[in-house]
Amino acid sequence: MAAITTAAAAAPIGGRSLASDELNGIDLYWRAANYLSAGQIYLMDNPLLREPLRPEHIKPRLLGHWGTTPGLNFVYAHLSRQVRRRGTDMMWIIGPGHGGPAAVATAWLDGTYSETYPEVGRDTEGMRRLFRRFSFPGGVPSHAAPETPGSIHEGGELGYSLAHAHGAAFDNPDLVVAAVIGDGEAETGPLAGSWFAGRFADPVRDGAVLPILHLNGYKIAGPTVLSRIPERDLAALLEGHGYRPYVVSGADPEAMHQRMAAVLDIVLDEIADLQRRARESGPTGEVRWPMIVLRSPKGWTGPGEVDGVRIEGTWRSHQVPLTDVRSDPAHLRILEEWLRGYRPEELFDGDGAPVPESTALVPEGPLRISANPHANGGLLLRDLAMPDFRDHAVQVPSPARTSSEATRVLGGFLRDVMAANPADFRVMGPDETASNRLGELFQATDRAWDLDRVAGDDHLAPEGRVMEVLSEHLCQGWLEGYLLTGRHGLFNCYEAFVHIVDSMVNQHAKWLKVSRDLPWRRPIASLNYLLSSHVWRQDHNGFSHQDPGFIDHVVNKKPEIVRVYLPPDANTLLATADHCLRSRDYINVVIAGKQSAPDYLDMDRAIAHCARGVGIWEWASTDAGREPDVVLACAGDVPTLETLAAAQLLRDYLPGLGVRVVNVVDLMRLLPAEEHPHGLAGSAYDALFTPGAPVIFAFHGYPWLIHRLTYRRTGHDHLHVRGYKEEGTTTTPFDMVMLNDLDRFHLVMDVIDRVPGLSVKAARLRQHMQDERLRCRTHTREYGDDAPDIRDWTWRG
Amino acid sequence: MAAITTAAAAAPIGGRSLASDELNGIDLYWRAANYLSAGQIYLMDNPLLREPLRPEHIKPRLLGHWGTTPGLNFVYAHLSRQVRRRGTDMMWIIGPGHGGPAAVATAWLDGTYSETYPEVGRDTEGMRRLFRRFSFPGGVPSHAAPETPGSIHEGGELGYSLAHAHGAAFDNPDLVVAAVIGDGEAETGPLAGSWFAGRFADPVRDGAVLPILHLNGYKIAGPTVLSRIPERDLAALLEGHGYRPYVVSGADPEAMHQRMAAVLDIVLDEIADLQRRARESGPTGEVRWPMIVLRSPKGWTGPGEVDGVRIEGTWRSHQVPLTDVRSDPAHLRILEEWLRGYRPEELFDGDGAPVPESTALVPEGPLRISANPHANGGLLLRDLAMPDFRDHAVQVPSPARTSSEATRVLGGFLRDVMAANPADFRVMGPDETASNRLGELFQATDRAWDLDRVAGDDHLAPEGRVMEVLSEHLCQGWLEGYLLTGRHGLFNCYEAFVHIVDSMVNQHAKWLKVSRDLPWRRPIASLNYLLSSHVWRQDHNGFSHQDPGFIDHVVNKKPEIVRVYLPPDANTLLATADHCLRSRDYINVVIAGKQSAPDYLDMDRAIAHCARGVGIWEWASTDAGREPDVVLACAGDVPTLETLAAAQLLRDYLPGLGVRVVNVVDLMRLLPAEEHPHGLAGSAYDALFTPGAPVIFAFHGYPWLIHRLTYRRTGHDHLHVRGYKEEGTTTTPFDMVMLNDLDRFHLVMDVIDRVPGLSVKAARLRQHMQDERLRCRTHTREYGDDAPDIRDWTWRG
Repeated sequence: MAAITTAAAAAPIGGRSLASDELNGIDLYWRAANYLSAGQIYLMDNPLLREPLRPEHIKPRLLGHWGTTPGLNFVYAHLSRQVRRRGTDMMWIIGPGHGGPAAVATAWLDGTYSETYPEVGRDTEGMRRLFRRFSFPGGVPSHAAPETPGSIHEGGELGYSLAHAHGAAFDNPDLVVAAVIGDGEAETGPLAGSWFAGRFADPVRDGAVLPILHLNGYKIAGPTVLSRIPERDLAALLEGHGYRPYVVSGADPEAMHQRMAAVLDIVLDEIADLQRRARESGPTGEVRWPMIVLRSPKGWTGPGEVDGVRIEGTWRSHQVPLTDVRSDPAHLRILEEWLRGYRPEELFDGDGAPVPESTALVPEGPLRISANPHANGGLLLRDLAMPDFRDHAVQVPSPARTSSEATRVLGGFLRDVMAANPADFRVMGPDETASNRLGELFQATDRAWDLDRVAGDDHLAPEGRVMEVLSEHLCQGWLEGYLLTGRHGLFNCYEAFVHIVDSMVNQHAKWLKVSRDLPWRRPIASLNYLLSSHVWRQDHNGFSHQDPGFIDHVVNKKPEIVRVYLPPDANTLLATADHCLRSRDYINVVIAGKQSAPDYLDMDRAIAHCARGVGIWEWASTDAGREPDVVLACAGDVPTLETLAAAQLLRDYLPGLGVRVVNVVDLMRLLPAEEHPHGLAGSAYDALFTPGAPVIFAFHGYPWLIHRLTYRRTGHDHLHVRGYKEEGTTTTPFDMVMLNDLDRFHLVMDVIDRVPGLSVKAARLRQHMQDERLRCRTHTREYGDDAPDIRDWTWRG
Repeated sequence: MAAITTAAAAAPIGGRSLASDELNGIDLYWRAANYLSAGQIYLMDNPLLREPLRPEHIKPRLLGHWGTTPGLNFVYAHLSRQVRRRGTDMMWIIGPGHGGPAAVATAWLDGTYSETYPEVGRDTEGMRRLFRRFSFPGGVPSHAAPETPGSIHEGGELGYSLAHAHGAAFDNPDLVVAAVIGDGEAETGPLAGSWFAGRFADPVRDGAVLPILHLNGYKIAGPTVLSRIPERDLAALLEGHGYRPYVVSGADPEAMHQRMAAVLDIVLDEIADLQRRARESGPTGEVRWPMIVLRSPKGWTGPGEVDGVRIEGTWRSHQVPLTDVRSDPAHLRILEEWLRGYRPEELFDGDGAPVPESTALVPEGPLRISANPHANGGLLLRDLAMPDFRDHAVQVPSPARTSSEATRVLGGFLRDVMAANPADFRVMGPDETASNRLGELFQATDRAWDLDRVAGDDHLAPEGRVMEVLSEHLCQGWLEGYLLTGRHGLFNCYEAFVHIVDSMVNQHAKWLKVSRDLPWRRPIASLNYLLSSHVWRQDHNGFSHQDPGFIDHVVNKKPEIVRVYLPPDANTLLATADHCLRSRDYINVVIAGKQSAPDYLDMDRAIAHCARGVGIWEWASTDAGREPDVVLACAGDVPTLETLAAAQLLRDYLPGLGVRVVNVVDLMRLLPAEEHPHGLAGSAYDALFTPGAPVIFAFHGYPWLIHRLTYRRTGHDHLHVRGYKEEGTTTTPFDMVMLNDLDRFHLVMDVIDRVPGLSVKAARLRQHMQDERLRCRTHTREYGDDAPDIRDWTWRG
């Protein structure tokens, strides 16, 4: 094995890339952005330093992060210059979320900020407002955030910049996405795994991602790994990931400007060449994307030393480099010297507007990076062309007599969606598309795969639009980037392992929540999860694969954002999927089985049931025309099956008992109407569940979630929930429900225990149910499989 | 930049490492392990094939994973041979969790399995039981799991093998931990980020980790990235991570045995040399650990081709390579040929025991890898030497008149714990130890750091025992590995970002839950979280850093395992920490602020309060001697402050109102006694919270969690909870509580709205409270800070 070297890439690049006027222009822009960044952190008045700086000009609470900011401003200035020269359609992703001041400052210099927020003009008063609102109560956050024009990435939680960048670049062949990766962020697992994304980027149909690894040496208090490993190791690491790294390193502004300009010339040329060759001649072997390693001091251009302690170039400049400026006149003087060092009088005119020379490198209109329409994806969003999901309906002549694999049926529909939307629909999953029985997708497309292919490979192609990598983080990050830039998609995942992206879901939910209140941010397609291979059918994998708690996690998010669906069979899954794919600005969680399971509803009934979200299944109920003695409620495919089997037993053994079967597809219907847009009114809830009859609720997930949703309901005291209570192993499907007391026999026992005034016959039935449990347990332990009458159960009515 | 090359490492290594008897011995062991692995997947009878294979010998449900198994057996055989020759103390970590059959087979061959489970002897009946119990109802899981001797790693969820291995090696200077990493696993973010762990491994005080990257080419259905990238890229990648990779590649068993033996000779020598040099001469510059890249066919030695389709060497051998053996006689024949191909008659004697030649390479007693005591860490666990936490008490002459930074006080105690336990206590955190104000730790130790150090660095040393890397995954994985091998520790983390490891917490909770029912697995130290920089004090960082939902996540786990503590001040935090550090087999979540906040309890009262977990604060209550008109309950530091301020307001304005203040430290006390070991009996709960008075509960987290814990309590209908409802941004502390209606004024309004029969005075107070909210909001929006009377509030009593 031999690694290539890019010694050449680190060597001086001959000639001067920037003529003196260009050098001057870029330096003006950079100084202006740095001035505006520091101003945001410190000033609430006297924005242009037209008078000596006094304590009352300083914000009472200094909140923000300076350390990464000047480096980001440097990158942005150089990218803008290239865009202006080349006309490149370019976004940037700001991995160091702490660089919020840079994102705001550059957007204001570009004019984008004032177009987005007219109250913050490009004048003295506008600058004052810009400074004041940053990290100020009622203002804007300290990070690049939904409020920040030109951003699709909230960098507060580190790790996802490169994945977002690649998601944005998919199916945008003319787009270049510059992804600034902080060296802190680079230590995270998700970012470390995101380097693999380059192996899935198709130079023909996708745009280019330009990673800019920004090494400023420190995190909050400690050094970063990548800034301290030997130079040859860093080169090897990046080359090993398939990149050709170019290094821009130093602290002297002029030399750094020259080098950055030269390197950007090279890498943007390389990207263009690489794309042209691939597009003209088809895939031509190995693709090696260029990238940039930028080494610059943390807190660059900020205070060098304060009170005898080094600030610039150390971790001490991470946040606010000078903290006592309101109380310490010496510190106030240092701040004033620092700010005046940018020479604001050269940068802004008498009205506070940037002088033309300082913004000469800014591109026009939507070419401004801060105004790139891809960063407000809703602007570009088109409705999916939706084939008719009813064409995929399974025939259901009678409930629960036939069986289907729900996700396999869905796979046919998704295939048609994929075929009808060749440019803006992708399916992500950690190598589980076939395992989750969505394999018909591969009739319309392939798995994305740029590396070598060998005999026996299954549906691999560079232009594939099923994205499989064994990283839930990358799947999620790709999809987020794809959706935020105005496209559509679906993430199919094993239910238990979607917890791997819990924290990413939080951040996306927060993004959507804030975006809804920003009129200029247009709605985007919902983030759709299909969770299959769920808790009840981990026959192969056992306990580690059994966790239905993702629902609990998402329902903590803002009700306006989250939707949870538990379609009980194939046709209801089709109707649910159709609804979700058409929706906007939600996180839709759909949980459905992949194993063969009964069909309950024909398509018309499935559509009506899904539209209502919850309903009485009259065909399974025996309470016609009167209040029931008991309600059997259910949500989820396996609980629905057990509930119906219990209803059948009650019908057989206690024919006089009035049993109502209620199935819940849309879990949010259980919440009060005041708490969720889908919540049922109290009267509607009571009409279904009754105010006083015992309700035995068989639930897919942790049972207490149903209580958390219904504790304010009239009949809550009579509600008894069965669900997963963290008991499991590799075993048979029926043994799993028995382990958690969700089985049909236990449900019947629950009914007998809770319906008052039942006969002696009921007591005997209870004993019989216990015997049946023992029979099943014994059979399973003996034969390793469920008893035939359990496996082959169908509804007799 | 120039990358090193290890072309030499890939070249043939001269000579024959194995003499023919050794080669024969290792091949016998490997064949025996492979036979036993396949037997586990398929057979429920006729274990030694003493009669022709018939359908009834086959399990009705074939559950398990063959693909990775023969490679694991190969690795294990060679590691065992080395241990026997060298006497090395060695563990292995099985990254490919799907290799359960290999872990079980080798433990049985070693004799460990039968010692652990005497009912499964090393004889024919034992082998029959071994086969039958695998992935069988009532048996053992399909993965390496707690039930598996010699394992600390449930590989069902991929990504954590390398982090676990490093955690196991810390402070175990004589241990070698061989970590087999699957090429599927290698695509995950957490694993990709775990390569950085090598940069923190101290050759002097830590043991060695030997990564064995096992490339068998495929995941479930697709190829793996690392198996298909160019060879030079793979080398560069691993070298870039600081390793010296040696390649063992091929399919021919004899050649592979020779090569693996030779490479293991080299790498184990290199490790020993590297350690000896470092230990003799101190750190001597760059450390470059050796590692192995093993390329072998997926499903190696399994069926080559079935029905014209290639199986061995492809993704089709991932799970069960032949599925229809019970119904298809041709497939049954192939299975029989496959199994007989291992020549069981040469491997096992007439009684079914392994012949001596097939286990000649197995080391003795605890040197057997499957019997390594580190893999049952409780065996080695020693109690921490515990300094007296009361020495760190803050003086509290009167409640809520003085202030402390709770975590800073804790830092002093942790410093003493660190100093008193120099060999088995570590603190992990993503670069937040100082930020979370635990900086006094650095008086006792440093941050672990093996790379270069420069002027201005803060407390870095190779032997440091504060582990900081900006990867929550690595912190968690390190700590899990450390605890599972019998040591102690603490993970300090920003509250919002502990969600990053939600799924790892699931797996550890499952491990603990299963382990508790295995008498041979001894208790280990609890996994302790200190969550600071919490939701209410993200003044700098805003919405992305605001999420208190980790509590919701952990309370879904088995009640026997999880504990959640919300100490309201410094002394209660000290008492809580002392308790947690002494505990076993729990996941303790402690949430505490780092900002200056009131002290409520002196140390004696703090100890008593923590021992009860929940109690009435009489000094703050006005209900002495009678039933209160209202209960103000609180959990968490900020809610406690607002509750007391509300109590003060009620005292001032409605002096006749009987107010009881109840503080909850141990959240699990709220659950019914039947549902959690800490749950209060109904009578005790009612005595605190009353059966009928309105309860206004100010909670640290999402409010519905309190309802989920208390819905069965008598007074639940009268319970009204305020908490975080996903409203936030960068703003002041008081503005944050106002945004979420948790502020003192709103709590008073809640009281007035819920206590019946209050006077007109109360109505006026309600209006006053609304005015106060407006005053505070206006002040904050104007000045960017909280009003002075809010900032400087103290209890007047």
